[in-house]
Amino acid sequence: MLCVGLDPELEQLPPALLEHLPRPTSRDDSHDGIAEMLYRFALVIAEATNDLVCAFKPNAAFYERYGAAGWRALESIIHTLAFRYPDVPVILDAKRGDIRSTSQAYADAVFGSLRADAVTLHPYLGQDALQPFLDHPECGCFILCRTSNPGAIEFQNLLVRREDGTGEPLFLNVARHVATAWNTEHNNCGLVVGATYPQELQMVRAVAGDLPILVPGIGAQGGDLAAVVRAGMDSQRGGLVISASRSILYASNGPDFAEAARHEAQRLRDEIERLRQTS
Amino acid sequence: MLCVGLDPELEQLPPALLEHLPRPTSRDDSHDGIAEMLYRFALVIAEATNDLVCAFKPNAAFYERYGAAGWRALESIIHTLAFRYPDVPVILDAKRGDIRSTSQAYADAVFGSLRADAVTLHPYLGQDALQPFLDHPECGCFILCRTSNPGAIEFQNLLVRREDGTGEPLFLNVARHVATAWNTEHNNCGLVVGATYPQELQMVRAVAGDLPILVPGIGAQGGDLAAVVRAGMDSQRGGLVISASRSILYASNGPDFAEAARHEAQRLRDEIERLRQTS
Repeated sequence: MLCVGLDPELEQLPPALLEHLPRPTSRDDSHDGIAEMLYRFALVIAEATNDLVCAFKPNAAFYERYGAAGWRALESIIHTLAFRYPDVPVILDAKRGDIRSTSQAYADAVFGSLRADAVTLHPYLGQDALQPFLDHPECGCFILCRTSNPGAIEFQNLLVRREDGTGEPLFLNVARHVATAWNTEHNNCGLVVGATYPQELQMVRAVAGDLPILVPGIGAQGGDLAAVVRAGMDSQRGGLVISASRSILYASNGPDFAEAARHEAQRLRDEIERLRQTS
Repeated sequence: MLCVGLDPELEQLPPALLEHLPRPTSRDDSHDGIAEMLYRFALVIAEATNDLVCAFKPNAAFYERYGAAGWRALESIIHTLAFRYPDVPVILDAKRGDIRSTSQAYADAVFGSLRADAVTLHPYLGQDALQPFLDHPECGCFILCRTSNPGAIEFQNLLVRREDGTGEPLFLNVARHVATAWNTEHNNCGLVVGATYPQELQMVRAVAGDLPILVPGIGAQGGDLAAVVRAGMDSQRGGLVISASRSILYASNGPDFAEAARHEAQRLRDEIERLRQTS
């Protein structure tokens, strides 16, 4: 149930990676150099961890930051991952969401040009707006439900009125809509619930049936792994995609960074499996 | 108060534009050809309309669809617009929104590398998540409030409880938070309210004070211009950024497409000014 978040930050890349790269000699070369660094780093991490994970999750922001070169790197990374590890799906963490005609263009970008297997989406515009994503039965749509940041409560925990007159927090209402309506046509939806709120993860699981739940926020963001596994497993003792990024990517800054990443991924995976058996 | 949405779709570009472009001879050339077409189209439309508008609004989706070439076009368009028309701000319609560290990377992309003057953002994660955008005092942040699509009511119109025990729809709660909290530090926030719901635009204006409101959905999406101006103006009879895309971009498919775009922009602008005086 472990997922590695491929969110590279140039300043944090291990110097050992840089040594193997050609030095840029012009502005254009330097852009190529950035694309090459992002690409190589992601591929080294993937090579070190692919047999330990259920998915890779690059976040688009960390590539867009580097402009067209970053986008080219993102594209190359997803295409190469699909070729080398066809059994490990790639979730593009892009948090998109716009009206239907614009979502169509985004879906073309994410599932067409980038060829990701799944994407993360904002619920705010409602189902009709996201239909162009949902209409890809072979692709997964993870809808933001309860995010891991402290300010998530500002709107996500507002009490909204249910049809029977009782109240429930907005994030549960989102979970309910996704599970009972959005998912029914192609059974290709999931939810995103941050690792930092296991109680709310449990509430989401209670209304979401066996929908897959993507759980970011383990590791650097401080989520409690045992609580997450206990609160979030589905009826088959599965159904979680637990994502860690920085704790794996930057497990070491030395020339052993790939082994260190594998070691940390192995540790997390073993811990998840142990909790899965015993929770 | 008119804004032109620069949302090019290759299939709809006027053949007259294509005639002036070099034919692609290889795969890479064809990517350059796409970037060149998107760039030229946007720049021709901008040349034809820049003295009639208060802003340009490219939507990122229509560039991401074409991969790294599209991103390069988007970057070139924004940089060239800033150079040629320094008094006309560029709003990047990107509808971003992620936790703080990721929003930082998005803000670097939007305000740093792309150099947009403003951006559209999703409210779902709350203020703390969007702080890296808000922390650019010289840049505008337009927060999605009530969108123009039919399914917007699914969440945006849910009744949420206010502190005094009364209820209000979620979109009004978002407007209230943005106006009374998010905007206070740098006075750089605005709201997005679709042109298709003038009654709700009026409710938003009532709680938003003189915050600028970006109103997409005029023209092809069917919003009623007179109702929008009447419902949305601020206390200075201004404060609206009324965006039209397809009705201007594709006003003609012939060699006169630039003049036709100008003509339609002029018509819309004159109509907005007339309504502004008389409403």
